[in-house]
Amino acid sequence: MRKNEAINTRIQVINPNTCEEMTHSIGLAAEQVAAASTQIIAQNPKTGVPSIEGHYDEAISAIGVLDLIREGREQGVHGHIIACFGDPALHAARELAKAPVIGIAEAAFHMATLVATKFSIVTTLSRTRIIAEHLLQQYGFEGHCAKIRCIDLPVLALENDKEYAYIKLLESCQQAKMQDGIGAIVLGCGGMAEMADRVSQEIGIPIIDGVRSAVKLIEGLHGMGIQTSKWGDYDYPLSK
Amino acid sequence: MRKNEAINTRIQVINPNTCEEMTHSIGLAAEQVAAASTQIIAQNPKTGVPSIEGHYDEAISAIGVLDLIREGREQGVHGHIIACFGDPALHAARELAKAPVIGIAEAAFHMATLVATKFSIVTTLSRTRIIAEHLLQQYGFEGHCAKIRCIDLPVLALENDKEYAYIKLLESCQQAKMQDGIGAIVLGCGGMAEMADRVSQEIGIPIIDGVRSAVKLIEGLHGMGIQTSKWGDYDYPLSK
Amino acid sequence: MRKNEAINTRIQVINPNTCEEMTHSIGLAAEQVAAASTQIIAQNPKTGVPSIEGHYDEAISAIGVLDLIREGREQGVHGHIIACFGDPALHAARELAKAPVIGIAEAAFHMATLVATKFSIVTTLSRTRIIAEHLLQQYGFEGHCAKIRCIDLPVLALENDKEYAYIKLLESCQQAKMQDGIGAIVLGCGGMAEMADRVSQEIGIPIIDGVRSAVKLIEGLHGMGIQTSKWGDYDYPLSK
Amino acid sequence: MRKNEAINTRIQVINPNTCEEMTHSIGLAAEQVAAASTQIIAQNPKTGVPSIEGHYDEAISAIGVLDLIREGREQGVHGHIIACFGDPALHAARELAKAPVIGIAEAAFHMATLVATKFSIVTTLSRTRIIAEHLLQQYGFEGHCAKIRCIDLPVLALENDKEYAYIKLLESCQQAKMQDGIGAIVLGCGGMAEMADRVSQEIGIPIIDGVRSAVKLIEGLHGMGIQTSKWGDYDYPLSK
Amino acid sequence: MRKNEAINTRIQVINPNTCEEMTHSIGLAAEQVAAASTQIIAQNPKTGVPSIEGHYDEAISAIGVLDLIREGREQGVHGHIIACFGDPALHAARELAKAPVIGIAEAAFHMATLVATKFSIVTTLSRTRIIAEHLLQQYGFEGHCAKIRCIDLPVLALENDKEYAYIKLLESCQQAKMQDGIGAIVLGCGGMAEMADRVSQEIGIPIIDGVRSAVKLIEGLHGMGIQTSKWGDYDYPLSK
Amino acid sequence: MRKNEAINTRIQVINPNTCEEMTHSIGLAAEQVAAASTQIIAQNPKTGVPSIEGHYDEAISAIGVLDLIREGREQGVHGHIIACFGDPALHAARELAKAPVIGIAEAAFHMATLVATKFSIVTTLSRTRIIAEHLLQQYGFEGHCAKIRCIDLPVLALENDKEYAYIKLLESCQQAKMQDGIGAIVLGCGGMAEMADRVSQEIGIPIIDGVRSAVKLIEGLHGMGIQTSKWGDYDYPLSK
Repeated sequence: MRKNEAINTRIQVINPNTCEEMTHSIGLAAEQVAAASTQIIAQNPKTGVPSIEGHYDEAISAIGVLDLIREGREQGVHGHIIACFGDPALHAARELAKAPVIGIAEAAFHMATLVATKFSIVTTLSRTRIIAEHLLQQYGFEGHCAKIRCIDLPVLALENDKEYAYIKLLESCQQAKMQDGIGAIVLGCGGMAEMADRVSQEIGIPIIDGVRSAVKLIEGLHGMGIQTSKWGDYDYPLSK
Repeated sequence: MRKNEAINTRIQVINPNTCEEMTHSIGLAAEQVAAASTQIIAQNPKTGVPSIEGHYDEAISAIGVLDLIREGREQGVHGHIIACFGDPALHAARELAKAPVIGIAEAAFHMATLVATKFSIVTTLSRTRIIAEHLLQQYGFEGHCAKIRCIDLPVLALENDKEYAYIKLLESCQQAKMQDGIGAIVLGCGGMAEMADRVSQEIGIPIIDGVRSAVKLIEGLHGMGIQTSKWGDYDYPLSK
Repeated sequence: MRKNEAINTRIQVINPNTCEEMTHSIGLAAEQVAAASTQIIAQNPKTGVPSIEGHYDEAISAIGVLDLIREGREQGVHGHIIACFGDPALHAARELAKAPVIGIAEAAFHMATLVATKFSIVTTLSRTRIIAEHLLQQYGFEGHCAKIRCIDLPVLALENDKEYAYIKLLESCQQAKMQDGIGAIVLGCGGMAEMADRVSQEIGIPIIDGVRSAVKLIEGLHGMGIQTSKWGDYDYPLSK
Repeated sequence: MRKNEAINTRIQVINPNTCEEMTHSIGLAAEQVAAASTQIIAQNPKTGVPSIEGHYDEAISAIGVLDLIREGREQGVHGHIIACFGDPALHAARELAKAPVIGIAEAAFHMATLVATKFSIVTTLSRTRIIAEHLLQQYGFEGHCAKIRCIDLPVLALENDKEYAYIKLLESCQQAKMQDGIGAIVLGCGGMAEMADRVSQEIGIPIIDGVRSAVKLIEGLHGMGIQTSKWGDYDYPLSK
Repeated sequence: MRKNEAINTRIQVINPNTCEEMTHSIGLAAEQVAAASTQIIAQNPKTGVPSIEGHYDEAISAIGVLDLIREGREQGVHGHIIACFGDPALHAARELAKAPVIGIAEAAFHMATLVATKFSIVTTLSRTRIIAEHLLQQYGFEGHCAKIRCIDLPVLALENDKEYAYIKLLESCQQAKMQDGIGAIVLGCGGMAEMADRVSQEIGIPIIDGVRSAVKLIEGLHGMGIQTSKWGDYDYPLSK
Repeated sequence: MRKNEAINTRIQVINPNTCEEMTHSIGLAAEQVAAASTQIIAQNPKTGVPSIEGHYDEAISAIGVLDLIREGREQGVHGHIIACFGDPALHAARELAKAPVIGIAEAAFHMATLVATKFSIVTTLSRTRIIAEHLLQQYGFEGHCAKIRCIDLPVLALENDKEYAYIKLLESCQQAKMQDGIGAIVLGCGGMAEMADRVSQEIGIPIIDGVRSAVKLIEGLHGMGIQTSKWGDYDYPLSK
């Protein structure tokens, strides 16, 4: 799939849960948009939670994410992606990293606002809505998000019964398009990344997947020579 | 110090870092305001970080905090306090807990707004300012906080050179009182709890310590029979 | 109902309207959660309005509230509660008082945010919705309130036809639980205080009554030795 | 001073304090800009407070304001002005009135935003700053106000030592002009109304006086046939 | 229609589109409320767009608006009105003008908030909703607007099929009155100005037309001697 | 400078003013970060204003920008950049375009928030500060911007006396770094683009140039196959 060319950008894509099928499909989505000269390294922690569906799961996953960030830094990757829609441990990872670190929620929000005045989010479980709301508020995108829609399927159902999940996702995107006064839809789960193209063709408005968005943002920052700021609150963690 | 009376409220006070001196002093501050019928159980994780001075430290400390929350729940405590000013793992802990869980930052903010229209925060390191800012925004207290002042001492300096730390703290509180247009000051670190009374007497305006505040809020909720809501996003973590 | 113990906290609970039945039921609600060592002094002004259902009623009630605050201060009470959901004359009362003064709307909002990420308010008349909205905005709880629901019964109907009022209240709470994406419900009228327990048992999620909440917050502040700040804008009214 | 013409707009200008000198000077300021066909009726309550310098004074003044509003309505005035910068009892007055009711703080804010992107407020005492802040927030003008400056003179000093007050006011306006990045200045006290012209000539940028502004807004609403809405929360107070 | 009296206020009312029928009807609306001593000069650019229904149309119309503003200034008018609900080129016009410049959207918002706590907007096409949203945000009236309703008729349909447009408008206003919890309605298009009175009589709550509102605000500012601030960012455009 | 490779992304970089030297230097900055397969087409309108330093200049420049956007669309470019820090005519351009359109202010803001929690802006004239403030508010980045600093040099001074401009810029960036509590600096003028590298090396924290940022964002969107949404308010302008 990838052209034969010297690699100049290596991007670590971290699936914060331990589900390897999901890591695989996230990796494929990343590959799909990566430049010819970009290498995608999709990884997941060995231990942790099989899916992230709340604050507790997020907190538990943080250790694994941060261990991988440290490994990535030691291997000199040019950017890190945290491929879970809650952007778990994002600020902590930026303290640890030298290269840019991007969460897929923020990535999707940024890209969506460049092509539409309003977007809706279609995500998995209602109980994770509060996580998206907190991120929208902290990032400043509250005014750009028209609605958060939940298909009320657990994250792993996206892997286990893909067709049913796809139908539910499509239905929710269709409603968003017709009712929310929006121009684009943000997919609210790393596990939805592989369905982005199919949904996009069906719905006919920009469907923004955070995994792809994050790959392009990392490539962009790397291409500009911009790294995570080490001046101020993203400085390396203090040794005690 | 405590009156001899039947205990009816047991409160677990969790110092999220591994510094036992700090756990001890936090426990003393909690004891100081606890009702005669309240038992304070001050604890810290066995492993983790000796002090919390950034997002990375917070993320690492979360595991220990959550393990203790689970233990506390199994022992049937009536409330849990997370005694670090960043309120690390607060939402995750509420998913895990049945009893109320309160962070000392939110506790102090709530109490301060009941006695003054504006407060300033005096905290330790400049690099943790962003954590306080995010909490103020998420909790809704942005408009009530006039200024965040940093004494630029590491957290453990509060234990190691108490007198110097006290002088720096006092100086900063004095400036806050005279320059910020406020009515109260919030102490921005669990390690400052034991200095609250001395500062208060010197400065002569309400000095709000989050540890004490959290104890009284837990007692209050317990006295009303109110527990963490298990309806919605604070429901117990999903089993996979 | 109260244990035989030395009183160390005297709390003045002011019903700002002149309806003595309501004062009585508010007093009972306060007693129900008060510590053994707390004395509840429930009062209402001799003159004023029989119920508060708008800005005009609030403005008129202020004189009576402030007269009682002054009396309470002279009698050395340890805290004052303004038991009407619009928190009438709250800032003025704090200028006049030395001890803490708490409105039941703010009290309920504070407590609700400690056990749920979002709450709905169930109140009486639609025309008072704007009062709750202004308070949410001023206190900083706008982002925590999912919806304000009105049962469209006048305040005194809560006393005159308790059973009908209870059914309407229950119905509205049930809708809030099922439709609003919340974890807790705030009762939006002092006259609803006595129904809190019944509603709570029926609905099964935290039902937050401001009267009870205010009692526990006053006890908490008193237990910490925190009084209304006299530094700055809550200083005593200027003599001319 | 007024042209001889049939009066078609009668405006009640209420000074909420009992200082008759201030009522007189407020009335003069109102006259100065009133149309030839407008009659200014400047009044103050017989009892109340001699000056309004805090929330307590505001609450006490409300009764007098509302009594005058009722009288004005019975006399068929075409608009009411509440000529104290805290806009005391504004919402209550609108419930009571049929004609428009305008506070001088809101009037000045509205007019200032029509001629400048930012304004500063110059007011009397620091302790009243919080009142202006709450109004800015509630009205939506927070983002338009660059700074609130206080000359720290009591309200009555504006009457008692006019020259000294003028010098302090001028000094503060000059600083606002040079330091605040503004285009206009709002005078933050009814008692400053008579100094507006002198200040304006000296400072050379728009100086917005709320009394004059309110007169023109009332004339404007009356000229359009727009009255206070009686649909919804400004409906007449409920009879019990 | 106008009384015979010396003119002392000349107001330039600019219809930013090239539709002369609309200019005429806007002019009539302005005349209807203008003081006897006010002269209304209704104009439209010779070239530009026949109706403004999006950002592109707005941007194109700006040149014509600014040319007319310059002409108006040279002729010494006492105020300029930009009579399109998007307030196109408002800030630019204020740089160019000496006299006050007022957009009809802002004019209507200001007037509406003086007589109701909340208003709804009834406008033409859904695609222009975002323009109104941006204005509400920038002016600070977001919290005062309950809902933006669109009748989904193009602007010129207001001229071409007036009766059908009126029926659609009436229907939408009726829904706003009954469902939105408001006290007033803002008409969201200059082309609706002539229907304001009919709608108002039918609906029975304040219907705020921006053209009329702007006339009265200009008269008010002129009567106070207040012009656009030339201190700061509204100073005349820099010559290069 | 560019590798010999098949071009697959053509980006139109529009300098909205008529200064060809600036167009040239903006083009060079764009080239510097463009991928090997990207072609940069730097253009400016033939007529308009030589520099953009206020709302009036912005409004006048819009016509030229939109004409170029139309030409670019006809030539099938894959993205358009509006290279003036006020993002003039951005929404209008998106209506007209099929490919993505990005303003350099928004581009810089997005990139800055990916590597730092707070940024400051260093721009040219104080009078343009309000434009940046409005953009920050509309885009949602208000909370991320610590301070807007102005070097008070006209835009063309950046071309005419480059060394003096550089020294002023450097000085202001140094102050921002030391005083603003930030992690990155956004350059607030297209004319500063060519100085970005020098400043960056001197200051040692991320210096974000909007021209470069926009190039990478366009490449990213194009690489994902995302275009401006034609569903909703960015649909093509209506034909009348």
